Amino acid sequence: MTADDLFEQHRERFANARAVCRTRAAWSAFADQPASYPDFPAARAAGEEAFRARLGRRHELALLSVQDWVGEEVSPYTQQPLGIEYPRCDLDASFKAANTGVAAWSATTPQQRAGALLEVIDRIYRRHLFELAYAVMHTAGQSFNMSYAGSGVNALDRGIEALVYACDAMDAVTPQVRWQRSFGSTQIQLEKRYRLVPRGVAVCFTCASFPTWNAYPSMIANLATGNAVIVKPHPATVLPMAISIQVFREVLAECGFNHNLVSLVVDTTRDPIGKHIIKHPDCAIVDFTGSASFGQWVEQHAHPALCYTETAGCNAVVLDSCEDLDAVIRSLATTLCLFSAQMCTSPQNIYLPGDGVRVGTGSGATRVSVQDVSHKLADALSAIGRDPKKAAAILAAIQSPATLELIVSLQSSPANQVLLASKSYAHPDFPAARTATPLLLAASPQQRALYTTERFGPISFAIHCGNSKDALSQAAADVKEAGGLTAFVYSTDERFIADAENAFALAGSQLTVNLTGPMPLNFAAAYSGYHVTGLNPAGNASLTDAAFVASRFRIAQVRRPAA
Amino acid sequence: MTADDLFEQHRERFANARAVCRTRAAWSAFADQPASYPDFPAARAAGEEAFRARLGRRHELALLSVQDWVGEEVSPYTQQPLGIEYPRCDLDASFKAANTGVAAWSATTPQQRAGALLEVIDRIYRRHLFELAYAVMHTAGQSFNMSYAGSGVNALDRGIEALVYACDAMDAVTPQVRWQRSFGSTQIQLEKRYRLVPRGVAVCFTCASFPTWNAYPSMIANLATGNAVIVKPHPATVLPMAISIQVFREVLAECGFNHNLVSLVVDTTRDPIGKHIIKHPDCAIVDFTGSASFGQWVEQHAHPALCYTETAGCNAVVLDSCEDLDAVIRSLATTLCLFSAQMCTSPQNIYLPGDGVRVGTGSGATRVSVQDVSHKLADALSAIGRDPKKAAAILAAIQSPATLELIVSLQSSPANQVLLASKSYAHPDFPAARTATPLLLAASPQQRALYTTERFGPISFAIHCGNSKDALSQAAADVKEAGGLTAFVYSTDERFIADAENAFALAGSQLTVNLTGPMPLNFAAAYSGYHVTGLNPAGNASLTDAAFVASRFRIAQVRRPAA
Repeated sequence: MTADDLFEQHRERFANARAVCRTRAAWSAFADQPASYPDFPAARAAGEEAFRARLGRRHELALLSVQDWVGEEVSPYTQQPLGIEYPRCDLDASFKAANTGVAAWSATTPQQRAGALLEVIDRIYRRHLFELAYAVMHTAGQSFNMSYAGSGVNALDRGIEALVYACDAMDAVTPQVRWQRSFGSTQIQLEKRYRLVPRGVAVCFTCASFPTWNAYPSMIANLATGNAVIVKPHPATVLPMAISIQVFREVLAECGFNHNLVSLVVDTTRDPIGKHIIKHPDCAIVDFTGSASFGQWVEQHAHPALCYTETAGCNAVVLDSCEDLDAVIRSLATTLCLFSAQMCTSPQNIYLPGDGVRVGTGSGATRVSVQDVSHKLADALSAIGRDPKKAAAILAAIQSPATLELIVSLQSSPANQVLLASKSYAHPDFPAARTATPLLLAASPQQRALYTTERFGPISFAIHCGNSKDALSQAAADVKEAGGLTAFVYSTDERFIADAENAFALAGSQLTVNLTGPMPLNFAAAYSGYHVTGLNPAGNASLTDAAFVASRFRIAQVRRPAA
Repeated sequence: MTADDLFEQHRERFANARAVCRTRAAWSAFADQPASYPDFPAARAAGEEAFRARLGRRHELALLSVQDWVGEEVSPYTQQPLGIEYPRCDLDASFKAANTGVAAWSATTPQQRAGALLEVIDRIYRRHLFELAYAVMHTAGQSFNMSYAGSGVNALDRGIEALVYACDAMDAVTPQVRWQRSFGSTQIQLEKRYRLVPRGVAVCFTCASFPTWNAYPSMIANLATGNAVIVKPHPATVLPMAISIQVFREVLAECGFNHNLVSLVVDTTRDPIGKHIIKHPDCAIVDFTGSASFGQWVEQHAHPALCYTETAGCNAVVLDSCEDLDAVIRSLATTLCLFSAQMCTSPQNIYLPGDGVRVGTGSGATRVSVQDVSHKLADALSAIGRDPKKAAAILAAIQSPATLELIVSLQSSPANQVLLASKSYAHPDFPAARTATPLLLAASPQQRALYTTERFGPISFAIHCGNSKDALSQAAADVKEAGGLTAFVYSTDERFIADAENAFALAGSQLTVNLTGPMPLNFAAAYSGYHVTGLNPAGNASLTDAAFVASRFRIAQVRRPAA
């Protein structure tokens, strides 16, 4: 099939995505739950088998200039090495190989590139989704359902979304015009042509806990605009990207393009290669997802490469007042536990009014003390951790041993006031799983240093502020300074909500108000939610807006006298 | 008049501009020549009078925290100080004042902001255009006609163009949606609202020789998206910006906005303030036009501010073959002389094939040696310099004494082979004018260091390459490395032209092919030409594309359960 054929094949899906990017209504190109996937049990079994077949082997990718083979992945569920080795390639050779295909790739039409990329997305969905889900589970530590939904279909949807924005940006540039005006008494007629020129080679850094979700949009935004992509995964979580890259390369080759337009560069914890890649003279674009500290370095040193970052933040909850405190506590507890809060959108800091949370409305309203609210929250968190089946479904596993160390260090420090201690829980399916129930600490604004750093993992802080107004202004100020992607406010007072909207819009957190019920508070909807504002240190780019794509290509013009 | 009324008043002009930005056909909102301006003689006289009334006085702008008054402008035409002093303000106070108005300004609709900005543009055109033209003449040294056309109407058109792109980018973000999907058996309905949030305070650096042309697009892109703007003009050329800023402030105040949304920060040659402004914690965006060396510093140090630069380049001419050599030489000579090549688009390096330029087609074709071509060019340049009226209209005046020093140093160096020496010419209207006829040097690729730096002013190099192919590859390589905005190729060979298109698209120069006649080769058309590609060191931003505007605002969202 040619790339044009592939575009025709996926035209309707793309048109739907394009429409919904305008309205930002709810939509997905895919079955949103495993059970809705065509022939689910068989597909799942085949995916698991494909994953198992990867273990203990070299992962062949036909990359150029392989120097040696490395791999250090350990399953958070079994705490056993996966035993997979990936080719470590010469960096210059990797950039050179990536660059080789750019001229032909960028000489195609945007629609042809879109055709190939839509096929990649579709093929990952049809042939590799469960294999990918198992790969995510046994590297990132996500539950099976999250691996399917968050790292699978939602990530693919975000990829399509990025493709829509890239195509919109390119379609806005007319390919040619006849231009005429007079200079003195002479009419000048020029044929002008406008060519879209890619930047070159983009480098996509993916993180250990949620690699595909940021990677697909970045990779596709880069490829759609004619660039090549080198993926540099976190050494703890290579397999989901290696599987994905294989599909990109397969489709590119089938369409007659150079498969080295997409490649993999791996490193090890001992010999990190990140800075070398970014300072490589052929590195034209950096997409970075990872730690805030390295993200800061990337933003400061990427020049002359373009740089898009999403790091991490201290996401805030402000609890002013509510009608149903139990419903709020349930939602908060579930979200604080979801994938052990190893998501960039997970809340961490809960700002509480020292004069109590107003519960109920009108004359029936009462104030519940900060202590009581904190204990209710601790109880709800504890209940999830005590029920192994629930814990397995919600908390899942801990990606990194460093998270366990951080938990121990925080809860054993005599300076910290522990409201709920963390311990491991016994996973019903994986007895050796690396697990931790949530840790809840009490804190005051005088202890800002404790909570204005991202404490990655199931760690949260109940922060006792003066009153609701203090809680809000403290939360917004902390976000602005320390970074934050999401914020959650509960209030029955519309004026307070309006103030919160202003405060968090300026601080740059995406705000959710008064949400309770089964939807995870930090659920990020493809085609609808803008992920990251770029207005605080949690990242400089948003998934997905025009700014995410518009600069990845440039416009070169040629003008000459019209024939 | 409210901002909404103003938008209605200018609606048709804006709609025309919007349409033409899509097609990129020729259009202007304004009379393109002084003679077509309504009641030209009276308007010109009034403008000159308004300019004269500015001389020898303080330029009041009602800025806050004025510390002292400074001014060092000298007219290139009279070489006398203008004697105008501008308020030098405390930097913190300037940022604070600028920030004060941002909340109210950004809370308006994009259309309201567009209304106010269209009125600013219209008012500059109706009330201040000739005053501005005289201000440009007597600071930058442009001819009257260029001051009117290039720094006047064309700059205003580019401002409208930037407004179109800013409004397009903002209009692409839906203000709200009702979003619904099921989680388990529960239907969740959310009201989502998307708010456009400005970055804060933008700083706009303007250059000495062509301030308004880059300033208007930058200022308007920033203001349209809700930001405030502080203009930092080159100390040699403050008045055109001070006049413009006055109009922005006047209109903002009339519409009920804080006039400090637009302000001026001046410095002196002895106490430059550029780095302090860029590293100021409230500096959110930098738009920079100026030297390549400071531009590089800006790009490297602006973080966390966004940064858009246009610096300078070594623009290339490649002369492979042509039908009418005299016509080519005339066009080249005129363009090399235009405003004494003090434009970022002026050609500098003329790459010639050592085996001669093929002239004519078919069996009548002959080869003209590099020596002969160089001498023809020298003669044509010399003819312009010898005719005082022509010289005044084309060469105009030299902005900076440093340019004269550079000319002297280059033409007196025994290492350099002078094809045409520069001298001053007697300006018919301004006997004391700072002038210089063009300097043409011969060079070989072994002397790359000589010409791979921008030699600002009427200085060009006839570079003897091996053959046409060498000339092209050398030119493209020099542009990629040293920077270049424009390139000019003459060839009767379509294969050579196709190669040139590829080479300069990758090198990032906007290419003009086989143009002769009365249109200046480097004429940059608003709404049609993309100025700067961002693909080489001559600048990282283009006037005007989506990338120029899309990141100047961010998107903050609020979601809550639907009522």
